[in-house]
Formats: sequence, structure tokens, C-alpha cells
Amino acid sequence: MTQPAPGLISAGQTAMQRMADRDTPFITACWYVAALSGEIGHALVRKTILGKHVVIYRTSTGEVSALDDRCAHRSFPLSAGKLDGDTIVCGYHGFRYNASGDVIEVPSQGGAKCPKGIGVRRYAILERGPLLWIWMGDGEADERKLPAQGWMESHKWQYSVGYMLLHGNYVSLHENLLDLTHLSYLHAGTFGTPDYARAPFDSEVGEDQIAVVRRAVPTQLPVLWAQATNLVDTKTAARIARSAFLTPALHLTSVDFYESTLPSDTRPEYHINVAHLLTPETQGSTHYFFVIGRDFGLGDNTLQGFIHNNLIEAFKEDKAALEMLEGVLESRGRDFFEISVASDAASVAMRRYLKGKSDTEARA
Amino acid sequence: MTQPAPGLISAGQTAMQRMADRDTPFITACWYVAALSGEIGHALVRKTILGKHVVIYRTSTGEVSALDDRCAHRSFPLSAGKLDGDTIVCGYHGFRYNASGDVIEVPSQGGAKCPKGIGVRRYAILERGPLLWIWMGDGEADERKLPAQGWMESHKWQYSVGYMLLHGNYVSLHENLLDLTHLSYLHAGTFGTPDYARAPFDSEVGEDQIAVVRRAVPTQLPVLWAQATNLVDTKTAARIARSAFLTPALHLTSVDFYESTLPSDTRPEYHINVAHLLTPETQGSTHYFFVIGRDFGLGDNTLQGFIHNNLIEAFKEDKAALEMLEGVLESRGRDFFEISVASDAASVAMRRYLKGKSDTEARA
Amino acid sequence: MTQPAPGLISAGQTAMQRMADRDTPFITACWYVAALSGEIGHALVRKTILGKHVVIYRTSTGEVSALDDRCAHRSFPLSAGKLDGDTIVCGYHGFRYNASGDVIEVPSQGGAKCPKGIGVRRYAILERGPLLWIWMGDGEADERKLPAQGWMESHKWQYSVGYMLLHGNYVSLHENLLDLTHLSYLHAGTFGTPDYARAPFDSEVGEDQIAVVRRAVPTQLPVLWAQATNLVDTKTAARIARSAFLTPALHLTSVDFYESTLPSDTRPEYHINVAHLLTPETQGSTHYFFVIGRDFGLGDNTLQGFIHNNLIEAFKEDKAALEMLEGVLESRGRDFFEISVASDAASVAMRRYLKGKSDTEARA
Repeated sequence: MTQPAPGLISAGQTAMQRMADRDTPFITACWYVAALSGEIGHALVRKTILGKHVVIYRTSTGEVSALDDRCAHRSFPLSAGKLDGDTIVCGYHGFRYNASGDVIEVPSQGGAKCPKGIGVRRYAILERGPLLWIWMGDGEADERKLPAQGWMESHKWQYSVGYMLLHGNYVSLHENLLDLTHLSYLHAGTFGTPDYARAPFDSEVGEDQIAVVRRAVPTQLPVLWAQATNLVDTKTAARIARSAFLTPALHLTSVDFYESTLPSDTRPEYHINVAHLLTPETQGSTHYFFVIGRDFGLGDNTLQGFIHNNLIEAFKEDKAALEMLEGVLESRGRDFFEISVASDAASVAMRRYLKGKSDTEARA
Repeated sequence: MTQPAPGLISAGQTAMQRMADRDTPFITACWYVAALSGEIGHALVRKTILGKHVVIYRTSTGEVSALDDRCAHRSFPLSAGKLDGDTIVCGYHGFRYNASGDVIEVPSQGGAKCPKGIGVRRYAILERGPLLWIWMGDGEADERKLPAQGWMESHKWQYSVGYMLLHGNYVSLHENLLDLTHLSYLHAGTFGTPDYARAPFDSEVGEDQIAVVRRAVPTQLPVLWAQATNLVDTKTAARIARSAFLTPALHLTSVDFYESTLPSDTRPEYHINVAHLLTPETQGSTHYFFVIGRDFGLGDNTLQGFIHNNLIEAFKEDKAALEMLEGVLESRGRDFFEISVASDAASVAMRRYLKGKSDTEARA
Repeated sequence: MTQPAPGLISAGQTAMQRMADRDTPFITACWYVAALSGEIGHALVRKTILGKHVVIYRTSTGEVSALDDRCAHRSFPLSAGKLDGDTIVCGYHGFRYNASGDVIEVPSQGGAKCPKGIGVRRYAILERGPLLWIWMGDGEADERKLPAQGWMESHKWQYSVGYMLLHGNYVSLHENLLDLTHLSYLHAGTFGTPDYARAPFDSEVGEDQIAVVRRAVPTQLPVLWAQATNLVDTKTAARIARSAFLTPALHLTSVDFYESTLPSDTRPEYHINVAHLLTPETQGSTHYFFVIGRDFGLGDNTLQGFIHNNLIEAFKEDKAALEMLEGVLESRGRDFFEISVASDAASVAMRRYLKGKSDTEARA
């Protein structure tokens, strides 16, 4: 075509106005993963989360403190200061902070008392299993909004954790996770198979979650899943994936594998859960944590390593693709438009949900 | 002077308002060289032209296709996908495009038909001799606007082609080419001679072209041209250069060399043509293609190599100077001004022409 | 604290509006150090000062010329041209400038006369001792505004000079110099001592200068000053520092050392002067020159080297801290605020002074 029809372009652009994109302000009233639990010990760690600098450390009682990472006095990063017991001493003029973020000593005051009420914000933190969740919102941290992650703490599941910094916006990563069509193309060399893109799927767009269930039955599994489940020499395996957007910070992929020719009441079934934990760092970068779990072969650490390492190879393909995409999105001009097709129903719903939440916060 | 007189500054600034500069929007209704013909085979090549990303490839019939380099669906670069026959399969979700830019398959649609009318823009391409010309304008590609390049296809001429990416604006390069005074300074070590800056010249400012003819007669040729023409031991050579701005995309330098003491009807004359092909990549960078031709010593490839390599050394000096200049222009403040002198008549006319064309497009 | 009280934040933000910060426009009606005297010989040197590019050189008579570093014609940097005698020949089209910045030759004019009145600004320069001072202001260069530096030219003092480019704003460096509390923290490993931050001090805020006098008596000197003064094994030394903001370009630190248990009329006293010469390069970078002087052990170059090298180690700590701080200030958001305490009286006065001067220039 010389040019897509003007009607198509304007329809695409109108639709985009209701959808979150890389420039949409972050949603703060939400729990995000600040760090893996094991990352934080008795040392100052600097993180940028939703564009804000935060210093995080664990006190001698094991509690985790997360403070604004700049001295209230002249803005020197607290993370560049020193931990003295459970207090932080600013590396510039020596202002001392307790774990609550209150200034408790100002050396230059000499004998005079420390001024009261000076300090920096402390962010609410919840530690759950391998994850440290943080609340960056203005309002009260609402523990009831923390998503369930019971399987991670169940003895029926074994998991491993990982992290990568992705130089792309978190909305694009959510969209990637909701449309597994891309396995046949982007992941053709890792865990995609040619038939996967054409497998039937159902979109579930509800108030509590937005999900897509994709059923590749019968199929031949890729090497990763075939070896992991021992469904090696069959072309009649089942691979049923549920991709669920749960919160702006969490996408859960749950996959069932089994031999489809065996009776459903006796066949062995294999389940994989991957929690994708998306924490925006800046508009153009995302902390991408993940928890990879399985409910079979428990105790077999070699198996867990095999799955983990293979998935990471695939995640690197996502990272590379989304970083390339970010380059396009950063430099998009006025004539930019996107066209959605039927299989984008869940993506579009998710992006509208994010846009609505962001707009609501902006109005507040 | 403590300060140039306020009147001089304001006169300079007023004059500049009518002249194109590095920030002037590009002129799109013009044929630009997208690539050298030999660059494009049966593989996806990404180019940025007038700030737009374009993917270019040659189909199995030898035809060249140039499309917007982003999938109409979720903007993944098509150049990061795969060629399958003469179609492009997007590397993200597998949307398939024919060479016209129409989407002809959407894998996630399953059995449903591919939506009609979806696709990306295909740009008009004309292949002429060693050059692939592209039309980026909104209106219809007007083949009559393609500049003549008959000498390249004539058996009386032999040429070689080259390319460099110049990190400067194309207006500055046009201005450089129209004022050969700079040969005595910038190119003192390559093909400039000390007398060249003071040689008499005529400016020709017309509707169809803007040109300067500079006559260095008698002169001693620089090593490059003395060796190429065998006018080695004379101080009475003639070197007459016509520098012509033909379109925003093309400047043609034509030079005549001869021994000025010989009778005009029997003396041998040597002609050099250099087509300078300027394709803006961004406001601050320019694809600089060139075709270097001669009408003497035909078949002598060593001679062509000698001329080509020596000219490239001089072009590198232009590149370095214009990149330094770009740094100044990028950071110029409100008090910036330029002063034009008599020898800038052609340059000023050219910059006014470009400004006028750009303004006309902006109004349309 | 969950969040500093809204009243505290708004009070901090209100106070900041009256204080200069990294974005405050520079004050131009002031002498700044352009270079160390020894830096400038018969060669073109490019400097950026208050955001302007300047080319500086010394003529054959030893006079220093400082010109706008761009040709009045087409803006090529003059510093990329050539010195020919005491004139600069532009490296692009050969425009020739005398040391006053007047264009005295335009080669392309041929036999025609050089246009009159064309040129670039020459900045006033004063050479005093080791320093070259420049006046960037619009109005006349007022020699009476040059700060006194008599001690540098006195035979009772010996000094050494140095320079570093600091990637931070000059206001932050002035603030650093006025609050020596930071010696106990930032310079704990070089020339700070733990008691220093708590030593009593007086702030002097007057029309002519803003200063802080800090009296650490009795104290144990850090290795640097103990060795330099031979007050090695005493815990009753005196270290009295006067930190004076003299102009936007100059801060003078004067320190007295002596044994406090000796009678004041017979005890030896040791004086150190450090002139901190701050020349903004850009909003985010500062030329930091310094002159380090002493009035004891005259002629002992080893001693001077010992003091100089040790101080440079401390200055590097300031540089690193201020560059980290610059990163915070560059990315500060709308909710940014600073809180001042009693010991900031001089800093606050200095920043208000700078803001007032800058505002006055903006109105003019």
C-alpha cells in the first residue's frame, strides 16, 4: 500500500488514547517488588523505583528499612553514607537517621538539641517468601492489596529466583506476557514451537484479572519442556498456558503439561508457575524479577537449574526485543499508530486498565 | 572589538530568519538517494531517512521494496524480522507482509481471515545506474522531478561510488560545497592550493539551479589533479570548477583542467564530475553518497582508484569540519548570528530556497 | 516518619525560592579566572566559561587575547584555525582576525576591500600573579571589582597552583566551602578529625563578604597539618579556619595553627591560605582552580609539595561528592525540598546573594 488508509490510522490513534503506553505516569498505589529478599543485608543498597531513589537496608533485628535516598539537609545520597549500628550517618555533614527516617543528630548543632520533625520518607515494606514488596503510593500502604503467592510458600512447589534490568517500559513487558503468540517467532530457537502461534486461545477480561488461556493440544513439546516432563517422543502432548495480568507489578504464567492420549484421571500432570514481577525503574527501564516454580521432581535441583537456565535464555530474547521496541517507541512521531487485532483483546484491556488507574491517580 | 555593533548583529539575525539552518524541517517532496544500488540484495536493510526508519530489500525479481520499518501491530522493527521468499515475517508476533507493505497473514487469527487493509507505507523507489532514489513526500512520487544523471550512464565516463555518514546537518554540507574558498584552508594538505581562495568566481542564481563558477587560471595544480591529468610541471594550468546546487538531494561539481597556454581548439581537456548526494538522516546527521567520474583515461582503474582515494581524504576533512561546526550549531544561543559576505551570494540563495520549500510544506 | 510534615516541606520549598541553585542563571558582572597564567602561551586554547566558548592566546608581546570562539561568518571555531603571527586565520574560509577580534582579511573578496566592522567579541582580561581573570559581563569591565590577592604577590608567602574540572554546579561548591562541618565526614580519611564538626563557629554575614570562623581549640591536628607545622604530639593545638565567600568567583579559606598552651605573644603561628577560584563552565560543571599558600617554611619546596598533594586528595573527595550530588540535583522532581539548620546561616546568605545578583541581571 502506498499508505494505510487515513481511517485506519485515525482509528488506531483514537484507540491508543485510551491505552497506557511508555509515557503513561506510573501507578503508585500498588505493591511492587523492591528487591529479592536475599539481596538485602546489613548494608546500604540504592534502588531506583518508579523514578524515585530509595536506600534499603536490613537492621540488626532483621527488619527491612527503605528510605528516600537523599539527606533532608542538602540532598546527598544517604546510600553514600555509612551504617552505624542501625542508623545511617550522612557522608557529607554527618546528619544521623534512624531506621524510621527521622534525623536524630545534627553534629553542627553542637550542644543545641537536634531539630525535631526533620527527616525523610520511609516506605512501607512487606517481606513475603523470597520477595520484598514496597509501597510507593501517597496514601496508606494497604496490606490487603498484596497479591497472593501461596504456591511459593507451599511444600508442593520448588522454585528459583532471578533478575534482569530491562531497558524498556513495563507496559511493553506486560503486553509481551499476555500474548504468547510470540513464542513461535521470538522464541523459535528456545521454547517456542511453530504451531504455538496458531493454537486456540480464550481471553478472560474481568474485574479482578485479565488473562489468556492458550491450548496447544496435541503438540510436540520443545526440548526444554519435553526433557523437564519426560514427554519426549510424543506428538500428542498437551501444553496449556494461562497468562494472567494480576496487578501492575505482577503477571503469573501457569502452564500444564500432560500426555493428551492418556485418561484424564490417571495421567501424570506437570505444572509450571512463573511469577513475572515488574517494577518500573524509569519510564524507559524495568526491574524484571521472576520466580520460576514447578510441582514435580521436587528436590531435583539439577532439574530446577535446567529449567531456570533455559527460561533465562528465552527471557534474554524478550529483553533484546523489548529494548529494540523501546527505541522505536522513544522516537515515535505524531503520525505513530498501532493496530490491534482480535488476539489483542486482553492486551488492550490491560493497557486500558493501567491508563484508567494512572488517570485516576493524576486527578487525585 | 569589545562587541560587534548591535546593528550588525541584528542585521545578521534578520537575514538568518529567511535562511534554512540545521533546525529547518526537511523537504520531503524530493527524490533522495536511499542507498547505493549495490548495497541492497535479498536481505533486510534498515535505514533512517529524513528521520524515518525504512526497511529496504530486493525481491526475487530484482525489484526493490522500501517499507516503513515497524510492524503495524505493535511497532516491532520489520528489519528485525525475517525474509520468507519475498515476504517479511515480523520477528515478534509473526505478522506477514508482502513487498507492497500489506499484511497478508496474522498467525494468531487462527482459521479466521486476515484483516484487510492493514499494513505499512511503501515508499516509491527508482533505480538509476548506481543509485536507488526514494520519495518520502506525502504527495505522489513525481518521476519527472528526478534529476538527470546521464553522464553516469554514458560510455564516455567512468565512475566510482562511495559513502560516509556525516554527523552534521545537510544544509551545512550544501553550503560547504557551494563555497570552494575553503579549499585553500580546510584542504590545504590535500587538494587545495593557496591561490584558490582568491581566484575569481561568478555566482549564478537562477530558478533551476544555484551555482558558482570559480576560475583558477593560471595556477599550479595540487598533486592529485597534476598527476591525474599529467599537467605536472606547469604553473599555467587552468582549473575551472562549477559548483551547482541542483536539488536538496544533489550537488554537482564539474571541473575542467587544461594547459592554459595551449590553443583552445587543440589542447587536451580533462573533466571531473562529482555528484554529491545528500540524504538527511536526522537533523544532525547526513548520509553522504558520492559518485566520482572522469572522461579521460577510460579503463584505467588504477587512475580511478588514485582519484577516488585522494578525494576521500579531502571529504574526511569536510566531515571533520562539519561535525565540529555541528557542535557549535547545536549549542548556539539566542545571541547567535552569522555574517554573510559577497562570496556567500549563492549560499544565501540556496538556504533561502530550502527555507522557502520547507515553509511551503509546513503550510500544506 | 512515613512522610515529613507538609508544613516542613512547604517551608523548605518556600525558602529555596530565594536561594540560588544549580539552575540559577550565571552572574556575568564579575571577574572569573579564565586560566592559570602558565597555561596560555602562543597557541590557541579553547575554554567554555559561563556557557560561552572562548579562544585564548598570548600574542608576541605577551598580551593575552580572549575572543568569542566562532568565526563571525559561518561559526567555525576559531580555535580550530591557525595562529599566523598574532592573527588567527579561520580554518574554514580563511577569515583573518587580529587580537582585538576584528576581521582584517576575507580571502574570497579578492581585490575588494575587507568589509569593515565585522568581527567577534574580545573579552577583557587582567593578568595578576598566577591568574588570568576574564570579564564576561555585558557592561564595561570594571577593574575595581577585581578582588585583592596581595598575599600571592608578597614575599612572605609561598604558593602552588592547581586545577580540576568538577562535574557539578558552582553554587554547590561554594556551599561546600562555607560549611566545614563536612571535614569530619567527607574528609575523615584525609584532613578531617572527628571533633571538627562539633567545633564552635561564628557566622559573619555582611555586605562585603559572608564568612564562617570555626575554632577547633584544643584539638589534635590531622597528619597533614601536624606534620606541616610540627605540632605533632600535642592534643592542645589550635586550628582556626576562616571560610570567606568573597565573590561568585572566589572563596578564601585562611587557617591559623598554633600550640594553644603557649603564651600568645611568643608562640609560633602558622598560616595557610587557599584561594578557591570557581569559574562556571556550564550549569553542571565548574572549572575549579586553586592557589595554596603558606607563610612558614618558605623556600621548602618539599613542604609545599607535601601540603599541595595532600590537599588535592581532599579536593578529590569534594569533587566526587559534588558530582554525586549533581546527579541528585539534575533529576530532582517537583517534590524536592531542602531543610536548613542553624549552621547553614552563611550558606543561605550566600545563596540568597547569588540569587539576588542573578535576578538583577535578568531584569537588566
